Amino acid sequence: MFVFMGLALVAGFARSQNPLPSWNDTAPKKAIVEFVEKVTTEGSPDFVPPNERIATFDNDGTLWAEQPMYFQFLFALDRVKALAPQHPEWKTKEPFASLLKGDMKAVAAMGEKGAVEIVMATHAGMTTEEFEKIVTDWIATAKHPKSSRHYNEMIYQPMVELLAYLRANGFKTFIVSGGGIEFMRPWVEKAYGIPPEQVVGSSIETKFEMRDGKPVLVRLPKIDFIDDKAGKPVGINSHIGRRPILAFGNSDGDLQMLEWTAAGSGQRFMGLVHHDDADREWAYDRKSHVGQLDKAWDEAVAKGWTVVSMKDDWNTIFPK
Amino acid sequence: MFVFMGLALVAGFARSQNPLPSWNDTAPKKAIVEFVEKVTTEGSPDFVPPNERIATFDNDGTLWAEQPMYFQFLFALDRVKALAPQHPEWKTKEPFASLLKGDMKAVAAMGEKGAVEIVMATHAGMTTEEFEKIVTDWIATAKHPKSSRHYNEMIYQPMVELLAYLRANGFKTFIVSGGGIEFMRPWVEKAYGIPPEQVVGSSIETKFEMRDGKPVLVRLPKIDFIDDKAGKPVGINSHIGRRPILAFGNSDGDLQMLEWTAAGSGQRFMGLVHHDDADREWAYDRKSHVGQLDKAWDEAVAKGWTVVSMKDDWNTIFPK
Repeated sequence: MFVFMGLALVAGFARSQNPLPSWNDTAPKKAIVEFVEKVTTEGSPDFVPPNERIATFDNDGTLWAEQPMYFQFLFALDRVKALAPQHPEWKTKEPFASLLKGDMKAVAAMGEKGAVEIVMATHAGMTTEEFEKIVTDWIATAKHPKSSRHYNEMIYQPMVELLAYLRANGFKTFIVSGGGIEFMRPWVEKAYGIPPEQVVGSSIETKFEMRDGKPVLVRLPKIDFIDDKAGKPVGINSHIGRRPILAFGNSDGDLQMLEWTAAGSGQRFMGLVHHDDADREWAYDRKSHVGQLDKAWDEAVAKGWTVVSMKDDWNTIFPK
Repeated sequence: MFVFMGLALVAGFARSQNPLPSWNDTAPKKAIVEFVEKVTTEGSPDFVPPNERIATFDNDGTLWAEQPMYFQFLFALDRVKALAPQHPEWKTKEPFASLLKGDMKAVAAMGEKGAVEIVMATHAGMTTEEFEKIVTDWIATAKHPKSSRHYNEMIYQPMVELLAYLRANGFKTFIVSGGGIEFMRPWVEKAYGIPPEQVVGSSIETKFEMRDGKPVLVRLPKIDFIDDKAGKPVGINSHIGRRPILAFGNSDGDLQMLEWTAAGSGQRFMGLVHHDDADREWAYDRKSHVGQLDKAWDEAVAKGWTVVSMKDDWNTIFPK
């Protein structure tokens, strides 16, 4: 007992000494620590009770990488290849035919319609349990084309530390992502310490059915909710029912979430990750095909939100 | 430090002595305590780690009363009366005309269509913040027609104790109700200790808008999701993403939630509240117009789920 208490004290001391070791001692880290100390100091006019300490994080480009394209789309492409033997018709049916030939330019030219067909063919038609197993297997085995790391090793170490720091200060941390809710849930608890009930994402409809006397939820090829742009405050309201006091994103898809967070009363923290590190990660912003950061950047500058430079503010990008 | 530890020990001892004082020492209480001890005993084959200790509770008829009709419908009726001066057309437009004349039989005869019109006229057209205030004011002032208690004083004391007992044992407690999610959130944290992010319910659509430079969510007169019957496992999957290990309901609307809970592996607890106490509450089951308990009762008996008799198993109904 005494030993454990001693360890806990040492760990607590180390943490309070430097709760965010992968962050340089630049303005963003200072702003984060100052905000957390303000809202957690009892008796302060800025104090926020623990049950109202809601923090929301975008996932793609904010908690993990999103280049050369959203990882969930790479998952879908892997699934098309894995399922192709069961779908001989895909050899001549678009967008599958171009995809299987490796002609990604042709797939891209088919735009949203092609993408939705690929997503539905790979994300629907099975039970929720079956899909969970597919995602779990993929995340354990698939590797990123450039880094050769597993995808769940392409999470940002400074953000993992930030999530833990917030939780140590009584915050509840949520993901609010345009990505699929059921694509994230199988692996984010281990990666980020965020349990499935604290994940908000896009979804397709599910249907309750009895199969051989056993209840299942079947995933239907029908979009239920798109948790992006103006959908993010809607998703936050639906799942959390309370306005965040801290929100982090990296793209214009996060703008409305940041506006929604900023519009509450009292102390607020709005942050954006700026991908400006071509050496260690990628550099992209106003004209990017993924994670476009344009209007949200202008608004962040105009309103004094925190913009994190991956190059200048993070001494580490990925976990070692 | 020592004193606090001493107090914690005393509190822990008192709790372990009788964690459910409003429950008689009959079979349901024994089954609950036995289940909780099994899943929380480390090293036991039945041990469930805290992050998987999900407990879901229906609200109407399970956590609070639902007679002479669902309280949310009584709220809607109060709202129609309050809004009538702004809607002179309601004097001749059904279902409002009959409602304002007090002819509830005529309203009831209009069935679901009439009910949906009343709900939409009273639940949509305002922002989420405005609706929250309306509900908060109503719950603070409106009184039940029979008991003259505030509605949030018509919660079941034994269930409040059960929720606290589960949380003290590392469970996360959720509401999974056919009632409106935004009708419950403003008052359930205080009443049951359940925060807004752990409330699953029926919903109407909301839309993100900028009004005078301020972001708002506007409630639209369009049903988004009905969290009842086969919708309950869908709502659990959408909001929680993890199968409950304990679920409590009181009616056929809870059957699929109980089936979904029962179908998981390991120890499970499925409970039903049976309203059989006409003296202290109400007595109704197979033929009731609210909270009908028929098929779920049969299935509970067939499968050995716990059926709680309000008359025999609870020594207290409402908080004192």
